Amino acid sequence: MICQVDLKTCLNSLRVEIEQRLHADTLFPPDCPPRLADAIRYSLLAPGKRVRPCLVLMACEACGGTRSAALPAASALEMVHCYSLIHDDLPAMDDDDLRRGRPTNHVQFDEATAILAGDGLLTQAFLVLARDLKPAAIVPDCVMELASAAGVTGMVGGQQADLEAETSTATTLEELEAIHRRKTGRLLAAALRLGGRIGGADAELLGNLTIYGESVGLAFQIADDLLDVTGQQDKMGKGVRKDADLGKQTYPSLLGVEESRRRAKQLVELACDVLAPLGARGEHLTALARYLIERDH
Amino acid sequence: MICQVDLKTCLNSLRVEIEQRLHADTLFPPDCPPRLADAIRYSLLAPGKRVRPCLVLMACEACGGTRSAALPAASALEMVHCYSLIHDDLPAMDDDDLRRGRPTNHVQFDEATAILAGDGLLTQAFLVLARDLKPAAIVPDCVMELASAAGVTGMVGGQQADLEAETSTATTLEELEAIHRRKTGRLLAAALRLGGRIGGADAELLGNLTIYGESVGLAFQIADDLLDVTGQQDKMGKGVRKDADLGKQTYPSLLGVEESRRRAKQLVELACDVLAPLGARGEHLTALARYLIERDH
Repeated sequence: MICQVDLKTCLNSLRVEIEQRLHADTLFPPDCPPRLADAIRYSLLAPGKRVRPCLVLMACEACGGTRSAALPAASALEMVHCYSLIHDDLPAMDDDDLRRGRPTNHVQFDEATAILAGDGLLTQAFLVLARDLKPAAIVPDCVMELASAAGVTGMVGGQQADLEAETSTATTLEELEAIHRRKTGRLLAAALRLGGRIGGADAELLGNLTIYGESVGLAFQIADDLLDVTGQQDKMGKGVRKDADLGKQTYPSLLGVEESRRRAKQLVELACDVLAPLGARGEHLTALARYLIERDH
Repeated sequence: MICQVDLKTCLNSLRVEIEQRLHADTLFPPDCPPRLADAIRYSLLAPGKRVRPCLVLMACEACGGTRSAALPAASALEMVHCYSLIHDDLPAMDDDDLRRGRPTNHVQFDEATAILAGDGLLTQAFLVLARDLKPAAIVPDCVMELASAAGVTGMVGGQQADLEAETSTATTLEELEAIHRRKTGRLLAAALRLGGRIGGADAELLGNLTIYGESVGLAFQIADDLLDVTGQQDKMGKGVRKDADLGKQTYPSLLGVEESRRRAKQLVELACDVLAPLGARGEHLTALARYLIERDH
């Protein structure tokens, strides 16, 4: 599709800018121990799709702002996402040895360094937001946005609920959605809302961006669960069927494969519908939503 | 001493306000899993001296501000200190089972919950700062102040350097001071600087508050090392001589007990001297500096 070719060109150019920025934001002065800096950069600069920071930049542009104004928030959001992966992979959490085909942080370095690398990334995210977002008047709302999405009622709370669900006997669809809304949806919605705030979105548009972010977040999780059932290990860079083998509840296990696919598509259409008022300026965001649930790339 | 009686009265009244505020700042909505909220409150609301938040409030008052204006920053700083204790106690880090005479967070709950409780506290600290500090115009500088002191060139970097020093054969006095400056000194200095900023301190006064904070931070660490050699277990609420038994380098092991005492006193006198321009308004801070290195209380 022409639209998806355009989207890929757009994503590639956004990724270049994001990765330059991530690189610059983790050139630490000598007071940072070299091993800690190495561990942070090992995970943060690893090849990745950069979905969340791309969403920050695209939302900012869709609302009339510039990419460069949104880069600090894009960098901060990717740092928070990366810290959560490092901590989630720890032996006491999901105990994963591989991430995107490479040893996880605590395997490559050690557990203590991985914990501190995560702590350092989370802290650096707030430093970058407060130091570089302009005008300074938007800093308080943007820090609140990120902290609220990443904190105990958002991503951290979702991970706790997810761990607790693993040891409970039955999870309902409602409980599963409540977990993913916090674990994935809140941070994706924050990506959109940060970009929107920087681009000057009003309250109504911020509300629509929130719906887009939460819907795409859930659809993304369903697509991930589906890939876990149907995917191939070499494409994922991690062991597939892991969740299924562990007897963990997923969308396919609760709804079946076909109904899960239908639900993901329905969520993506909802996400696209709420951005209709943006017209052509919202096209990259709607194309990205559709692209994300294909995931055969 | 009359002065110390006054100081104790002052500290007690500050602690009451701080603990009320910590309580209020961790009344989480239902999206926070109850076990996670319990774990956070278990550590944050445990009895403690609240040295750091007291310093925030005292610095603010010494610079002409009000206590209530500084309470959000005091709460945020105590949250960051508390998160660092939870993570430092983890099996992969210092592996401590007791903290202030009670089971550490991962012993009372579990490792995954303790990691997430720490992550949640760090995130909540920035949420509180951005949401509640007034006027909003001081938020960017205050977020930067906290993030810089707590991050990879500050507290997190100091903990990494401390862990690395444990496995190296020799540590010099210079290396030991570089570790403690980051691990303890930067956050203590941030307490003073945050209070100062909220109280309207100019650049020169902020510089003096920094010297006070860093000096008191080092003196505090020396006093802690001395207590580790000479203290009694029932007073500390944790195993004493632990560092010494592990062959870890400390001030007494590098300088001897008497020279360590002399150095702590010298640092406290420096801290008091730089606050001389504040006159009577700085008296509580100078009394506190002297009180902290006695530590027989």
